[in-house]
Amino acid sequence: MLPTVLRSSCFPVYSKPIVTLFLPICRRFYHLSAVCTPVTPQMDASDASEETLRGVLAEKQASVDAQAGVVRKLKAEAAAKADIEAAVESLKALKIEVSAVAKRLQAVVSSSGGGSGDREAFRQVVVNTLERRLFYIPSFKIYRGVAGLYDYGPPGCAVKSNVLSLWRQHFVLEENMLEVDCPCVTPEIVLKASGHVDKFTDLMVKDEKTGSCYRADHLLKDFCKEKLEKDSTLPSVKVAELKHILAVLDDLSAEELGAKLKEYGITAPDTKNPLSDPYPFNLMFQTSIGPSGLSPGYMRPETAQGIFVNFKDLYYYNGYRLPFAAAQIGQAFRNEISPRQGLLRVREFTLAEIEHFVDPEDKSHPKFVDVADLEFLMFPRELQLSGESAKLIDLGEAVRKGTINNETLGYFIGRVYLFLTRLGIDKERLRFRQHLPNEMAHYAADCWDAEIECSYGWIECVGIADRSAYDLRAHTDKSGVSLVAHETYPEPREVEKLVITPSKKELGLAFKGNQKMVVEALEALNQAEALEIKAALESKGEIEFEVCTLGKSVIIKKNMVSISMEKKKEHQRVFTPSVIEPSFGIGRIIYCLFEHSFYTRPSKSDDEQLNVFRFPPLVAPIKCTVFPLIKSQQFDEVAKIIARSLRSAGISHIIDITGTSIGKRYARTDEIGVPFAITVDSTSSVTIRERDSKEQIRVSIDEVASVVKEVADGQSTWADIMWRFPTHSASHVDD
Amino acid sequence: MLPTVLRSSCFPVYSKPIVTLFLPICRRFYHLSAVCTPVTPQMDASDASEETLRGVLAEKQASVDAQAGVVRKLKAEAAAKADIEAAVESLKALKIEVSAVAKRLQAVVSSSGGGSGDREAFRQVVVNTLERRLFYIPSFKIYRGVAGLYDYGPPGCAVKSNVLSLWRQHFVLEENMLEVDCPCVTPEIVLKASGHVDKFTDLMVKDEKTGSCYRADHLLKDFCKEKLEKDSTLPSVKVAELKHILAVLDDLSAEELGAKLKEYGITAPDTKNPLSDPYPFNLMFQTSIGPSGLSPGYMRPETAQGIFVNFKDLYYYNGYRLPFAAAQIGQAFRNEISPRQGLLRVREFTLAEIEHFVDPEDKSHPKFVDVADLEFLMFPRELQLSGESAKLIDLGEAVRKGTINNETLGYFIGRVYLFLTRLGIDKERLRFRQHLPNEMAHYAADCWDAEIECSYGWIECVGIADRSAYDLRAHTDKSGVSLVAHETYPEPREVEKLVITPSKKELGLAFKGNQKMVVEALEALNQAEALEIKAALESKGEIEFEVCTLGKSVIIKKNMVSISMEKKKEHQRVFTPSVIEPSFGIGRIIYCLFEHSFYTRPSKSDDEQLNVFRFPPLVAPIKCTVFPLIKSQQFDEVAKIIARSLRSAGISHIIDITGTSIGKRYARTDEIGVPFAITVDSTSSVTIRERDSKEQIRVSIDEVASVVKEVADGQSTWADIMWRFPTHSASHVDD
Repeated sequence: MLPTVLRSSCFPVYSKPIVTLFLPICRRFYHLSAVCTPVTPQMDASDASEETLRGVLAEKQASVDAQAGVVRKLKAEAAAKADIEAAVESLKALKIEVSAVAKRLQAVVSSSGGGSGDREAFRQVVVNTLERRLFYIPSFKIYRGVAGLYDYGPPGCAVKSNVLSLWRQHFVLEENMLEVDCPCVTPEIVLKASGHVDKFTDLMVKDEKTGSCYRADHLLKDFCKEKLEKDSTLPSVKVAELKHILAVLDDLSAEELGAKLKEYGITAPDTKNPLSDPYPFNLMFQTSIGPSGLSPGYMRPETAQGIFVNFKDLYYYNGYRLPFAAAQIGQAFRNEISPRQGLLRVREFTLAEIEHFVDPEDKSHPKFVDVADLEFLMFPRELQLSGESAKLIDLGEAVRKGTINNETLGYFIGRVYLFLTRLGIDKERLRFRQHLPNEMAHYAADCWDAEIECSYGWIECVGIADRSAYDLRAHTDKSGVSLVAHETYPEPREVEKLVITPSKKELGLAFKGNQKMVVEALEALNQAEALEIKAALESKGEIEFEVCTLGKSVIIKKNMVSISMEKKKEHQRVFTPSVIEPSFGIGRIIYCLFEHSFYTRPSKSDDEQLNVFRFPPLVAPIKCTVFPLIKSQQFDEVAKIIARSLRSAGISHIIDITGTSIGKRYARTDEIGVPFAITVDSTSSVTIRERDSKEQIRVSIDEVASVVKEVADGQSTWADIMWRFPTHSASHVDD
Repeated sequence: MLPTVLRSSCFPVYSKPIVTLFLPICRRFYHLSAVCTPVTPQMDASDASEETLRGVLAEKQASVDAQAGVVRKLKAEAAAKADIEAAVESLKALKIEVSAVAKRLQAVVSSSGGGSGDREAFRQVVVNTLERRLFYIPSFKIYRGVAGLYDYGPPGCAVKSNVLSLWRQHFVLEENMLEVDCPCVTPEIVLKASGHVDKFTDLMVKDEKTGSCYRADHLLKDFCKEKLEKDSTLPSVKVAELKHILAVLDDLSAEELGAKLKEYGITAPDTKNPLSDPYPFNLMFQTSIGPSGLSPGYMRPETAQGIFVNFKDLYYYNGYRLPFAAAQIGQAFRNEISPRQGLLRVREFTLAEIEHFVDPEDKSHPKFVDVADLEFLMFPRELQLSGESAKLIDLGEAVRKGTINNETLGYFIGRVYLFLTRLGIDKERLRFRQHLPNEMAHYAADCWDAEIECSYGWIECVGIADRSAYDLRAHTDKSGVSLVAHETYPEPREVEKLVITPSKKELGLAFKGNQKMVVEALEALNQAEALEIKAALESKGEIEFEVCTLGKSVIIKKNMVSISMEKKKEHQRVFTPSVIEPSFGIGRIIYCLFEHSFYTRPSKSDDEQLNVFRFPPLVAPIKCTVFPLIKSQQFDEVAKIIARSLRSAGISHIIDITGTSIGKRYARTDEIGVPFAITVDSTSSVTIRERDSKEQIRVSIDEVASVVKEVADGQSTWADIMWRFPTHSASHVDD
């Protein structure tokens, strides 16, 4: 449970998909291009709402009950055998109808659209491919692994490295951001200031007999979802109650959660033993810095704090100019109570975070025009609350209308959209969802999540928040170092300022030992209070004044304090900058990218399905392969020459001289998403095959490396290249 | 203290520079190009050895003593005032000579060459520049920091990212390595298998009153060094004793260290309180995985284990072919007792490690020819033991002569040399030092460190070790998963194999309940033992046979066991691969690079020294600047157009339209090592200035981005470019 006073943006990579709460979406679950065979059937064409289905189900169930009564009656009356049989037949037919409707209802409830079974089957195919081709590997597998820890194997690691390069190019370089690199080990005081030590917790319950730990909200959620899915006879008032619980799950206190667990009789899932009351468990990995054991530290739960504590130096580095952005890519850690959802909820992950510091009085952005014309799926608060779905909205208009709080926030939303779609995220399964008031920290001005739809539902992958001055103020308070910016006025400005001057002498005479506390109380007056006292002193000569620290009132006389409004010249404004924070869960983005890029197609030679990842060339783990068409020393030599020129051009490649059938070799590398295959079929020119279209062109050996580099680096598209070179008609095509 | 049974290669980034132990080097401390002003004077031209100096010192001291005797005698005899004065004068002169020699001795002892004071002064200038320009920042500075933790600020972070990119290009891409990315959080069992849980310790002592902790070997080392440096009257036997201690410091046991601390009366440096006995302190940051508190984990002390535990999958990924290499870049952690030496000994650091798996029976390398002709400074075991210095040696010859154990190890040594020099490490201050027998793990076949000389002495920055099959065997034993490779023979081979077949029936009759243990003992016989028993049974019919598990001997008769050598066909060989491990301490390399790249030159306008980092373009944090020569809207527009084309070419740059004098702007960016400056002085063409030569060429606005890209990416050198474009004679030159 994440209290709203804490940085909501710490958690972009974990919050549960809220698919079942607000979204009556029925978009196609995954998008397949024309050449692909769907792995799962499209969802039921009927778009009956859950409510309608529950109504239908109740009616059908009533008919079943009625018909069962008929059968019973006929039997009791010892009616004619044929009559009884006919009645039984029609009862059976009714029961089949009930079960069909119940099934549809279950599908709708469990995944707001496509059947959850289909999603899981699709995921299974993707995950099998990913694990078999070592995109990722459960960490420490030979020791039975550790839940929530994964390794990226060679192709996964290359994809990750490409995603991070693109991120650096798209954000750090294009926006001249100041990138920093801070340690993961963090002393307690920093995370005390940020609020993590006290509030970065989940509520946990323990099996009272075995001591096994569970997340309390997970147990309640599972119970509610199962009831809603499996129990088709739930009365509508119960349905509403369970749905309400799911909607407010994140806001429940330990006591409320505990009460619900008791009320529903929820026990430990593995043993059915009774559970303890819920209590907070801090999700940071704790450690100790240095040999004394006296300096507690934690593995950072996010990278942002490293930037905030450096604000002063970075502001200086930027020539004391605002706005500027700092960025950091690095590992973050979260000791999950019970990790779920494979690569989506893990105990260690890579974050890429930006902190854009801006004058709170001017959140315009000079480059907003560059993104203002973008139109994409947005899911503002109002649509969520009125039960509608996400809509295509023009970014410029969203900012103009105030749907998005300010230009800078809007600019980053636009840049995040461009980044994700450039990576290969399907824009129809990407939406920007605004936080509801109860999700947002009290200090936040506005907050949007980039959510990507995958087989687990809509997953929060990037959080883009205007966090106001909260973080810099928290560290200013804790450290005593003032993290502020200055605006020097072109000309000094005249301002009226309240001046309170207690007369220590008179106050001392009057209050002796209490003098100090009275002075402090007077100095702490705000403008309204001070002016009120001034007026009273002028009219009555004295006033009764409550001094909290003394716990009583004292009489203040006119000679004891002078209060006035004075005009002063000010040369500069001192203020705490606001921070706008786009925070990227890299692992989540990559997992969604895997799902969005995956498709299957039939092989030519048999009925087997071939797996393909349609990664854009920039993201693909390996840019091209080099295959001699047949086993031949001459062709092998040519292949080696080409490999050498690819290497010096910095193009990652695989050379495969095994002499396996060319179709098999294509299939093997399509499955790790290699976009281009060079086949050596002569000693002067070669073919280049594109993965998705399977089109081939013929290019001379001298040119081939530079042509591949051109498309792999994104300087040209395959379509551009197709124009320039003769196409090669299929003599050595896919099997 | 690192026991030799443990992986010595875990520690490439920490081991103490052994400068004072073996190296009578007197190379120039830092190399300055012709244009530079030395920050520190060159070392004393006299290359008197320490021993000679001690001899001279003893003589001079004797003369002083003698002359003092003369003075005393004259005074006692109430000799003529003039005589006494003359004698005192000559005593003074002798004392001055003693002090001069003592100073030279101290310089030689403290840094085997250049005076340590000079080194420290130089370091101070570099470090000041690095900190002021935010190359790095002590982490959590506003909270007074944490010893041994540093942030990379913007230019440092960019240098690091460039170094890692080059590493990926130079190693992973060029060698087709399998890069993986494993978590930092590691369960205990993995580090138990690797030996870190039991043996990754340093010996610590505590101040008995305050509880402050110190590294025991540091205290002893400091004591010995100080004695040797400051006490010029040490008798030669004492000198030898202290030097011996320094040489064997790493091998001392807790007891031996404790005894020495007591013998020399060493107390806590800060309080002079007595110290506890030394005891081992484990250097891993410990934590707990999951909520139960029952699964201890550690932050990995190196990245290598993540590769070893994945060997099986990686071998499969590589098509079950050897050799292959896996690589990993990532954070590693070491909870130092008392971090010293700034960026060199830190508690969290980036490692880049390669594990090259190879058939132990064939360590040849097909690409060794590519590096065989390299010649660079090597410091083989023999030279170290005979007190000589490192020598230029031909790599091919070193492998041929067996100085370097095998071709693969030699290949990586060559590749590391190329990598480091390409980064900008001065090849005259880079040497490859072979481990001495006492430094090397018992299982290691050979081990070399790339050591770079900086103001702290010779620093181990890369370890290149042939670790034999140790690591894979350790994980096989612990996990029960066999991490082996197979070689399938082209044709099955006939081998003779020992076959022992105990007759369970006879043994059961004879030994009843003990039968099982006798059977196991028989089956465990090695070939020699078995053949001996076979012979005895054949000649005598029985033999007395000791069964350890029973703790007694039994009589084995002929009918109880059959022993024979049988011929079998074998289709494959199963073996544990050897691993050759180059392991890079990235932070150490970067720090040394900072020192090697730094120089100063006078500014034209005043006597101030300007700081310059001569980073190669590939490494430079920012590739170029764009400066309008004077404040002008037209020039600003041109500057923005150029900035845009640089951005889309992916060239990091700074645009500075402040209108500060062009010389100041050059100086400001020379100080962060920006290699090229574009100055806009017209609307059609601009100048490009190179940082070190300060030469300028004139290039048209359309071309400028691509020209800068060409030199920044390393496709062309500045010299190439100079040929192609007109030089621009200094109208707007450095101030």
